[in-house]
Amino acid sequence: MNYRISANVIRRLPRYLRRLLWLEKQQVEKVSSRELGTLMGLTASQIRQDFNCFGGFGQQGYGYNVRQLKAGISDVLGVGDTLTAVVIGAGNLGRALMSNFHFDECGFRLAAAFDTSPALIGAEINGVKVLDAAELGPYLASHRVDVAVLTLTKKYAPESAKLAAEHGVRGIWNFTSIDLDVDLGDTIIEDVHLSDSLLNLGYYLRGRGDQRGRQIGG
Amino acid sequence: MNYRISANVIRRLPRYLRRLLWLEKQQVEKVSSRELGTLMGLTASQIRQDFNCFGGFGQQGYGYNVRQLKAGISDVLGVGDTLTAVVIGAGNLGRALMSNFHFDECGFRLAAAFDTSPALIGAEINGVKVLDAAELGPYLASHRVDVAVLTLTKKYAPESAKLAAEHGVRGIWNFTSIDLDVDLGDTIIEDVHLSDSLLNLGYYLRGRGDQRGRQIGG
Repeated sequence: MNYRISANVIRRLPRYLRRLLWLEKQQVEKVSSRELGTLMGLTASQIRQDFNCFGGFGQQGYGYNVRQLKAGISDVLGVGDTLTAVVIGAGNLGRALMSNFHFDECGFRLAAAFDTSPALIGAEINGVKVLDAAELGPYLASHRVDVAVLTLTKKYAPESAKLAAEHGVRGIWNFTSIDLDVDLGDTIIEDVHLSDSLLNLGYYLRGRGDQRGRQIGG
Repeated sequence: MNYRISANVIRRLPRYLRRLLWLEKQQVEKVSSRELGTLMGLTASQIRQDFNCFGGFGQQGYGYNVRQLKAGISDVLGVGDTLTAVVIGAGNLGRALMSNFHFDECGFRLAAAFDTSPALIGAEINGVKVLDAAELGPYLASHRVDVAVLTLTKKYAPESAKLAAEHGVRGIWNFTSIDLDVDLGDTIIEDVHLSDSLLNLGYYLRGRGDQRGRQIGG
């Protein structure tokens, strides 16, 4: 898999994965690119093109084997190869992720959380310790951490991201909705923009479109 | 704007809007489709095609006027036309949205939140009251609510969505990551799948791609 694959194709892989899990739950064993396309609002040819980036996932005769296709896409996404994450900021959002988000299903292990609040430091949430934010640097220096989840106040986001990047953290999952325009070297930033989602819903509610707002395949 | 515009075009509008706000902050007054494309990982021709769905937003000579383009896209998204939302479930995630999410910037007013916890009922968070979840039905019957934000336990999500839809709520912003496969009539569902975002980041961290994971234009 050394080809340069478009970022848009990669972004569709988690959506395929969700839809295949759903099909598996419905006990569907085979699915054609046309059926999958109808479920996801894509054309059959786009789906085949996407899958051909990864060798095609072995479509034979009528459609794909759901289980094999799911395994193939999980494998491309590397879900079986566990990475380590820490949460920076154990406020409401950080705690919501710690309590309810299935890091494991994305191939991540949540190792620790950091906060400045004395009321939180030392607490354990869903099996994960909240450590003193002052310990973040030393912790990162002595533990391999792949991703920093930024759920802290906007104001401290850039410096925390910089500290993380300086200590070898290669990915930032940024919930602060600010542009991390500090020098983070090769660190990969994934921004979460919840407003995009609500603006999209608003468009359809305001009667500006006659299609459903639902992320098709969502 | 009575054409049937593709859902993918609509989904790009919030991204354009964010990028234009960013350009405005950099005090950029004019931007060409090519420059905007480079910033957002799109081709100039795709951008022109997108904008032509809405009459083109008046590109003249060299590029678009940033302020006018931003106003035009805000207008299409209807940000100036305020809709009403309620949060169902004032746990960590609900409270995080109440405290930090700018509903107003998306053209929404958050009117109330609902929870079953006696410790939360009656509390006011960022100016919004938490009401008893038992009052949800009567509240919806006597107040116009456009969107229910589902931040409650998965288990109760379908019945809450159904109750909301039965009381005329036309949109569901669903954070529960379950398929709301109950009959919700014409209610529009917008699902938030945070796992898609982390899976995407993981792909790049695992060295499967040579491109940045950052949502370009994000």
